Amino acid sequence: MFFQEPELQYEVTVEEPDPHFAKLLQQAIGGQEGEMRVALQYMFQAWAVPEEYSEYRDLLMQTAAEELGHIEMLATAVTKNLRKAPEELGDEQQGTDPSSAYTGQIPRQILSAGQSAMPVDSDGAPFTGNYIVASGNLAGDLFANVMAEATGRTLATRLYEHTDDPGMKDMLSYLIARDTMHQNQWLEALEALDDPVPVPASFPQEQENQEYNYSFMSTRREDVGDPGMPWTQGDSPDGKGQFSFVPEQPGDGEVIAPPPDPKTYDVPEDVDGQ
Amino acid sequence: MFFQEPELQYEVTVEEPDPHFAKLLQQAIGGQEGEMRVALQYMFQAWAVPEEYSEYRDLLMQTAAEELGHIEMLATAVTKNLRKAPEELGDEQQGTDPSSAYTGQIPRQILSAGQSAMPVDSDGAPFTGNYIVASGNLAGDLFANVMAEATGRTLATRLYEHTDDPGMKDMLSYLIARDTMHQNQWLEALEALDDPVPVPASFPQEQENQEYNYSFMSTRREDVGDPGMPWTQGDSPDGKGQFSFVPEQPGDGEVIAPPPDPKTYDVPEDVDGQ
Amino acid sequence: MFFQEPELQYEVTVEEPDPHFAKLLQQAIGGQEGEMRVALQYMFQAWAVPEEYSEYRDLLMQTAAEELGHIEMLATAVTKNLRKAPEELGDEQQGTDPSSAYTGQIPRQILSAGQSAMPVDSDGAPFTGNYIVASGNLAGDLFANVMAEATGRTLATRLYEHTDDPGMKDMLSYLIARDTMHQNQWLEALEALDDPVPVPASFPQEQENQEYNYSFMSTRREDVGDPGMPWTQGDSPDGKGQFSFVPEQPGDGEVIAPPPDPKTYDVPEDVDGQ
Amino acid sequence: MFFQEPELQYEVTVEEPDPHFAKLLQQAIGGQEGEMRVALQYMFQAWAVPEEYSEYRDLLMQTAAEELGHIEMLATAVTKNLRKAPEELGDEQQGTDPSSAYTGQIPRQILSAGQSAMPVDSDGAPFTGNYIVASGNLAGDLFANVMAEATGRTLATRLYEHTDDPGMKDMLSYLIARDTMHQNQWLEALEALDDPVPVPASFPQEQENQEYNYSFMSTRREDVGDPGMPWTQGDSPDGKGQFSFVPEQPGDGEVIAPPPDPKTYDVPEDVDGQ
Amino acid sequence: MFFQEPELQYEVTVEEPDPHFAKLLQQAIGGQEGEMRVALQYMFQAWAVPEEYSEYRDLLMQTAAEELGHIEMLATAVTKNLRKAPEELGDEQQGTDPSSAYTGQIPRQILSAGQSAMPVDSDGAPFTGNYIVASGNLAGDLFANVMAEATGRTLATRLYEHTDDPGMKDMLSYLIARDTMHQNQWLEALEALDDPVPVPASFPQEQENQEYNYSFMSTRREDVGDPGMPWTQGDSPDGKGQFSFVPEQPGDGEVIAPPPDPKTYDVPEDVDGQ
Amino acid sequence: MFFQEPELQYEVTVEEPDPHFAKLLQQAIGGQEGEMRVALQYMFQAWAVPEEYSEYRDLLMQTAAEELGHIEMLATAVTKNLRKAPEELGDEQQGTDPSSAYTGQIPRQILSAGQSAMPVDSDGAPFTGNYIVASGNLAGDLFANVMAEATGRTLATRLYEHTDDPGMKDMLSYLIARDTMHQNQWLEALEALDDPVPVPASFPQEQENQEYNYSFMSTRREDVGDPGMPWTQGDSPDGKGQFSFVPEQPGDGEVIAPPPDPKTYDVPEDVDGQ
Repeated sequence: MFFQEPELQYEVTVEEPDPHFAKLLQQAIGGQEGEMRVALQYMFQAWAVPEEYSEYRDLLMQTAAEELGHIEMLATAVTKNLRKAPEELGDEQQGTDPSSAYTGQIPRQILSAGQSAMPVDSDGAPFTGNYIVASGNLAGDLFANVMAEATGRTLATRLYEHTDDPGMKDMLSYLIARDTMHQNQWLEALEALDDPVPVPASFPQEQENQEYNYSFMSTRREDVGDPGMPWTQGDSPDGKGQFSFVPEQPGDGEVIAPPPDPKTYDVPEDVDGQ
Repeated sequence: MFFQEPELQYEVTVEEPDPHFAKLLQQAIGGQEGEMRVALQYMFQAWAVPEEYSEYRDLLMQTAAEELGHIEMLATAVTKNLRKAPEELGDEQQGTDPSSAYTGQIPRQILSAGQSAMPVDSDGAPFTGNYIVASGNLAGDLFANVMAEATGRTLATRLYEHTDDPGMKDMLSYLIARDTMHQNQWLEALEALDDPVPVPASFPQEQENQEYNYSFMSTRREDVGDPGMPWTQGDSPDGKGQFSFVPEQPGDGEVIAPPPDPKTYDVPEDVDGQ
Repeated sequence: MFFQEPELQYEVTVEEPDPHFAKLLQQAIGGQEGEMRVALQYMFQAWAVPEEYSEYRDLLMQTAAEELGHIEMLATAVTKNLRKAPEELGDEQQGTDPSSAYTGQIPRQILSAGQSAMPVDSDGAPFTGNYIVASGNLAGDLFANVMAEATGRTLATRLYEHTDDPGMKDMLSYLIARDTMHQNQWLEALEALDDPVPVPASFPQEQENQEYNYSFMSTRREDVGDPGMPWTQGDSPDGKGQFSFVPEQPGDGEVIAPPPDPKTYDVPEDVDGQ
Repeated sequence: MFFQEPELQYEVTVEEPDPHFAKLLQQAIGGQEGEMRVALQYMFQAWAVPEEYSEYRDLLMQTAAEELGHIEMLATAVTKNLRKAPEELGDEQQGTDPSSAYTGQIPRQILSAGQSAMPVDSDGAPFTGNYIVASGNLAGDLFANVMAEATGRTLATRLYEHTDDPGMKDMLSYLIARDTMHQNQWLEALEALDDPVPVPASFPQEQENQEYNYSFMSTRREDVGDPGMPWTQGDSPDGKGQFSFVPEQPGDGEVIAPPPDPKTYDVPEDVDGQ
Repeated sequence: MFFQEPELQYEVTVEEPDPHFAKLLQQAIGGQEGEMRVALQYMFQAWAVPEEYSEYRDLLMQTAAEELGHIEMLATAVTKNLRKAPEELGDEQQGTDPSSAYTGQIPRQILSAGQSAMPVDSDGAPFTGNYIVASGNLAGDLFANVMAEATGRTLATRLYEHTDDPGMKDMLSYLIARDTMHQNQWLEALEALDDPVPVPASFPQEQENQEYNYSFMSTRREDVGDPGMPWTQGDSPDGKGQFSFVPEQPGDGEVIAPPPDPKTYDVPEDVDGQ
Repeated sequence: MFFQEPELQYEVTVEEPDPHFAKLLQQAIGGQEGEMRVALQYMFQAWAVPEEYSEYRDLLMQTAAEELGHIEMLATAVTKNLRKAPEELGDEQQGTDPSSAYTGQIPRQILSAGQSAMPVDSDGAPFTGNYIVASGNLAGDLFANVMAEATGRTLATRLYEHTDDPGMKDMLSYLIARDTMHQNQWLEALEALDDPVPVPASFPQEQENQEYNYSFMSTRREDVGDPGMPWTQGDSPDGKGQFSFVPEQPGDGEVIAPPPDPKTYDVPEDVDGQ
């Protein structure tokens, strides 16, 4: 169950409205690395967690609620950067054509949303549920979360480099800090599990093929020999095997599609006697 | 540069063709956890790697080539499960209506593809570039790869539980083994980097907000106190901070959208004097 | 800023788990008429509202928070309907093939999510930002909200007809009631605006074409005469015009694409002298 | 059944071709508020209308045919704005780089379509069936149509503000007028129904929860008291209830996902004794 | 400019309503091979045709109008197959669970559309502008149209095999015939062009690489010799070259991504001295 | 089974890095006409080919492997064009705002990918499996391939016109040449089939409607008479019919949707006695 208060989680100010930056900020709202992804991902993961892992459900839901507030901060940042008369911008930067005021912007921020934030990324592609990873397996989900915060923090640092506005720098400095915390909390949560890898750890590993489960398989045309890398020799990180080097793919088995049902009309021409 | 040979990477046999299983296998081809994702993800990551990390580029590209072969194995498995006369299936399982032969199947495997594999998932949703994570940051990408192999292996084990066919069990046993290896190789590759977290590690961390970068922030309505979890106390996994507990969100700042340009016609009614 | 408590907004119970119904419920989570749409739509609309309409922003945000709780209720309903051993279901309803246990289900609820809810609709298509309408114009947005609650309530009544489970009936009876309230609140909010139509009312209406702005234009092949319908005669609902009937489209103007730049290679063949 | 004539519905002229405006016009073709949406939406709605409402089917189909002509007008406007030598444009506005001629444009209008209109929006995102609302319930559909024309007219007025070309202003003045008419006709059609709300009105309303069907539910952290708004007090617009204020969400019921089937491998680690 | 009459292009009757077939028919409405694709594709192509090819524009637009009527016929076929009491169907085929009546169907045909046709394919994936090919080059477009009618006719023949209903067989027999005509008309239109290949024929062919423009390039690991196929020897179909066999890819050039800007934080860790 | 070598298929050099061109190149990677489409399309087609057409499977797979190498070349071209300090570009072309450095670019190439290539098109829309045509019918597939290479070559020639860089011109000259070859090889492969049209040729043509299978059907409002075009008179290209002209559509049959099930709540209001 959710509650909300008409206050931002952290102050958002803009000294010099910059419509170009409003475009870039969209990536952090509706993009692959954005806050809509993490807020919804953590919720769907939480709703799958059974009773015995309730402290994880709690951790996921509390963080989800925080991320909702980040979407709100970024949406506020977008309207504050956009709501400057476009005429003025046109005069300054792009000439006098009224249509060219949008040069290099996301036109839909004006045309579809009246100078507001949208559930799209910085290229104008809509947010999609495809970004959300919630596998039902807690260890897999936690790795997904580390990845989400890693790519999210990378995005935030890149945004940080593309603004000089003190308000925007301060907001991003806060969001980068939260990504640091979240990256660390998901790593810690992984460590708190016993032996989470290889995910899913509950699958009886003796049922997997025992010849190829810890060997690096070269796909070079010819045998180039073991390069002696950490992933071709030594103990595997899951502590359950020894890396080895295999010079080529097993290569057993023919690529033969069986004949299709004649009623699919796959046969290209009308062959007598078929 | 790529080469191919008309042989499968590993033998694929089907004793009892099962069109229902052909539907489930689609998830491992064109789905969020599927082989198209990893093959393409590893390629795009590799093409971004600069010279100084060339052994990583190599690792990524070689694995990408292997994954292409997995798509091929699964596509072969789909045609072998589908290409059995639908009439026969209809008689056995669903009655005599010719249209009901598709009950519970992906109709497009027959209607669009003539009993063949497609670049879609088990719900018939098309493969999308949105599944691919290639951030330019190697550590972030490696976490994405651990996640990809973790969710991919989870999918393969679930498929393993839903077939009794010895050929399909053997193929999946091989694919599960390769996912074990790949999960381990990406974890090993992460360990071979110095201090990869918090990603991106090259961002000067003193520029992030220092008050909230290692604190768990409660989003409960009232202060419930530090629950004493591993993520509210103790050293952080990146070795750069100490976890703490913050009972509520900072909550500074008003949600005030500035007035829009009148030319956006955001103002709902015709107000005199505006 | 958002908060959450580990309690559902309204109790959710399932007496007889029904995986088929878990499939149908997905429509109310991630579908075009679902709760993800309204929760996010109300947020994005709210973030665009300027200060002078702050009571509307408040109305939008409070309702958004309520809708987040509905997603949670429905996700809980899905796990409760799904988490019954598929073997058992297979035995009862579909035969003994382990793969056929998914007949008529969304395979990804099992394969991708381990018997959990997903951000997809009942056909397995992912939630998309394309469902969200937030135009910046408050009157237009309120009509979008009436529509959203109208189609949402229609969906909920159809779901109500497809379950006999008392717990599911009770949950849906609650959700239908909330849709009744929300439909009414958005209609009331529209009435509280002065002259909201034609949207956007702030556009100077004398700039629109005055010949065709209140006339019904027939697209029949021949003049069939004024049918005397409420939309071809009498006062228009916006109180600003009189309906009339026009027997055919103006039809002025040629469809002539100018010649393209030769460098686009649009000209199909290599014509001498061009 | 459809017919067409090689004439535009209304004349389209362009005095000063402007490739930037050609980008913005795409929103009115393939965008969320565009003409492809309404043309197809009205068709699909019409095809669902049963005999007893045949005058509505007629209204929907005739309007659909008109909207097809609007797509044609806009596509003509796009080619007329685009088909100006890009070199010339480059010289004027963007410098001498041949690639920079596309700055701020939709590159696919040139690269994919040879200076022509496309079924995409002004951000280049493809038209999608997700924009179409056709619920089977006539009242719900009519609200969807009011919304469609409201957001469509808002888009057209914003486009009107971003061109100085007399031909484009005239075309948009016509399209705005038609949106005025269509908004009014759908409102009139709603009024011609008896008691259409709450949609669907044919659902027996006594089956919905009677405690929460006309009450505004606060989602604030604490009881802030009835704000005395039109939607917390007084008669509801559907004439079937009285608004009231509820200070908090019912909050009954635990968020407990049942334990998953072990064969989904949701349990993160290999626990002895399971 | 478009017109419509309230009559179908060709009669559509259904003797035995079959909801399963209503699912399959969706592929011919909103699918990759469906009528929405061709109707819209021919329109967008037509709007790009310059004056000198006006007989082609005419051919495209007239066929587009016909295809709109095919969507209408198929939508009518869907409602006629769906609108049979689901209870009855449940009794007959799937048991007594009200939710299982949808087994193997597209639930959204009922839940979202009230037993009507939708702009989606037979897997429930939405129609998308991505299916539409309109390149601006007439020859390329005509090949796209041959392909569209070829895959469309293949779909129609597969549908024909999956119904026993005389009305449906008659409708499909008509649609298959029209696809025969359309395939032939596009082939004829291609022949009416002088030398359309290689598309685009207006590109000065001497500017393409002259070493590799008519040679089959083997991608086998080793030189397997010229297989003597029609595409490795003899005249090329465009009459402008001679096929030859090249045993391996040129293989020149290193895959070296230049070092990224440090501000992208691509470098995974904090390296001293950078 | 696939192999790879760390060498490009053909050398890729860039003399003057041009981030604008990096945007345009994306169309050739992840766009509708791009190399991801053809590489994957040829693979899926190949996996459906039965034994008797194994030389076609071979042709398809070898070409697929070549196309994978083209994606790699283009991705390399993108990083070489992008990895120039954006500050420098900003100074030269767009002013001093750090955010405006992206004007006219795809922001995600920097924000999401750290100055690298992405699986998206030049508008930033993600690659999708919807672009892939693999019908199971070999003749239909070969027409799809001719179309793919025709639109692909058209794209490449347009890109060629928008760069002055000698390295880029050389790379594109090579890719255009390969498209020439591939267009020709698919046409040749079609000729090598006996009587491939009308696709699917194996459908017994006497089952299609014999009245309308070779007649051009006018959709004009009135009978305009046979225009005497090659597609209204004479032999059809498939050699199986004679073109004729039909002045109007058959027009038989009413558009009557049957009454829906009352439980769908399609009836808009609560009508007494229903």
